[in-house]
Amino acid sequence: MTKTLWSVGVDLGGTKVEVAHVDADGHLQRRLRRPTDVKDGPKAVELEIVGAIRELVEGAGLLPAGVGVGVAGQIEADSGMVRFAPNLDWHDVPFQADLGEALGLPVVVTNDVRAAAWGEWLHGAGRGCDDLVCLFIGTGIGGGVVSGGQMLSGCSNTAGELGHIVIDLHGPTCHCGNRGCLEALAGGWAIARRARETVAGEGGSGATLLQMAGGKPEALTAKMVAHAANQGDLLAQKIVNQAAEALVAGITSLVNAFNPCRLILGGGVIEGLPEWIDRIEKGVRQRALAAALASLQVLPAQLHSDAGVVGAAALAMRAVADMSVSRAHNAIQRA
Amino acid sequence: MTKTLWSVGVDLGGTKVEVAHVDADGHLQRRLRRPTDVKDGPKAVELEIVGAIRELVEGAGLLPAGVGVGVAGQIEADSGMVRFAPNLDWHDVPFQADLGEALGLPVVVTNDVRAAAWGEWLHGAGRGCDDLVCLFIGTGIGGGVVSGGQMLSGCSNTAGELGHIVIDLHGPTCHCGNRGCLEALAGGWAIARRARETVAGEGGSGATLLQMAGGKPEALTAKMVAHAANQGDLLAQKIVNQAAEALVAGITSLVNAFNPCRLILGGGVIEGLPEWIDRIEKGVRQRALAAALASLQVLPAQLHSDAGVVGAAALAMRAVADMSVSRAHNAIQRA
Repeated sequence: MTKTLWSVGVDLGGTKVEVAHVDADGHLQRRLRRPTDVKDGPKAVELEIVGAIRELVEGAGLLPAGVGVGVAGQIEADSGMVRFAPNLDWHDVPFQADLGEALGLPVVVTNDVRAAAWGEWLHGAGRGCDDLVCLFIGTGIGGGVVSGGQMLSGCSNTAGELGHIVIDLHGPTCHCGNRGCLEALAGGWAIARRARETVAGEGGSGATLLQMAGGKPEALTAKMVAHAANQGDLLAQKIVNQAAEALVAGITSLVNAFNPCRLILGGGVIEGLPEWIDRIEKGVRQRALAAALASLQVLPAQLHSDAGVVGAAALAMRAVADMSVSRAHNAIQRA
Repeated sequence: MTKTLWSVGVDLGGTKVEVAHVDADGHLQRRLRRPTDVKDGPKAVELEIVGAIRELVEGAGLLPAGVGVGVAGQIEADSGMVRFAPNLDWHDVPFQADLGEALGLPVVVTNDVRAAAWGEWLHGAGRGCDDLVCLFIGTGIGGGVVSGGQMLSGCSNTAGELGHIVIDLHGPTCHCGNRGCLEALAGGWAIARRARETVAGEGGSGATLLQMAGGKPEALTAKMVAHAANQGDLLAQKIVNQAAEALVAGITSLVNAFNPCRLILGGGVIEGLPEWIDRIEKGVRQRALAAALASLQVLPAQLHSDAGVVGAAALAMRAVADMSVSRAHNAIQRA
């Protein structure tokens, strides 16, 4: 039971929603998890979230300053309209407006990866830094970029699709339809795809991996590959090495293009292979421009799986503070 | 002879310096060219520039608001210290401070490509746009990025090294020491290198190119390759096609990472092959993410070889205006 300023962070996924009480210092005080059933539609998800927030409010004994929601999808700036969220099968859902009306509180909806980048920036490895790149390497690869103290959003709010920079123009196909994207070489799904293709092809060398997958190549995951590589399996190490090399090339591009002070690496693949951080840093220091490297720090993400809810809550807190400043400014001008 | 607000734009290269009178609307009113002799050092270059500015001032009958200088090199933010300018052989030259003292006027020194991007943004194809990427494809490839109405500078003022994003991780070596940079596949020097390597190798097919170069492969230039391609030479067309394909991959990365409203293409290679603009746009529309493409316009640069002086002058004008606003603000606060 705290009586201080707080906000709500929501991480809305295809199978569950997390709703968290986050204090003004970015500390997660309490978290509720609720299932989301895609087929029940946006209204059912809204009710689930409203119920969870009411529960948090009762516990806190005080209303939150605002609510931030991260959604895996394409979100319209300002309006927070969910243009398209494939995991939820949502098209043009005005979720920010609807949830705000249901709660009578300020609500801001953003992309889930952008929310995690806000979290790392304001309360994680990026605290106090005006120029950073956050790269999250999980099943897919995404990120967020802060430059000159501003989170980049771009023309249609999709800036930061860092998994879809091309690092091998004739490389393997990507889920996005392009070829040779960073994600298609170093994302978790790409590591698993590579393993599936390779165990089938190379006589004998794939035995360990195949055994881990119960004899079924289609059951192979990036986690199994990382585990086998850590245990010394040569084929798994080869696959992991290729993915690491792809990351070095992609991150070199990001360092040269954005010139960040800090490069923050997170996501499931990095958490499974934490030794990659040093290795990537060494590779990038060999390949990137000296002038761009002079001030670069490479750091692990700090908030892990909390980044999304902490970031969404922090963004809401900041949006409310900006609104207050703007209102105060207008009041002074009218006076 | 104009009596209105103006500023000076300077484009300082290794063999000559251009000093221009640019009005507040970005129109180049008068331009002086002076030779620069690298071996005479920074003081001689400073005297040359001071002399040219005095001549412009006499012609205008009015002092300029400020002076902007673009230098091919690595420039420290704020101080305008020239950290390293290879064409001039300068290391740690406090040129902004020195020139400002010599002239008694506000001076701002920036990187030459950044200056050209300022020019296109404020007075060229980027007017009125808050999110754009300028890519200049000449002998080398460089650029500038405006995001959220802010020219990105990065942690050590080197953001926008867009020629050094990796598009082919095992590709040809680049002048920067890395492999597979966009510049190493599509810059003018890379096109010429490819032509030299290829005419030597392929029996017969290189005859036209070789003839254009007077029988000397080492005399081949990107301009000759473009010319031969336009005339129907198959080998030249193959080289040009590979460079165009590399550009499509690199620009796809930029569109996905930055999500600009406008992509502005300029530089000598584009001016020699203007049909590339449509072709690149078609390719990028096939490869980039639909959400990032929704609002994208692809445009040719408008200021051509004037972009540098116009941009440097516009930057100086803006810096002086910002200083005035800041002084007025302080005065109001003190009142």
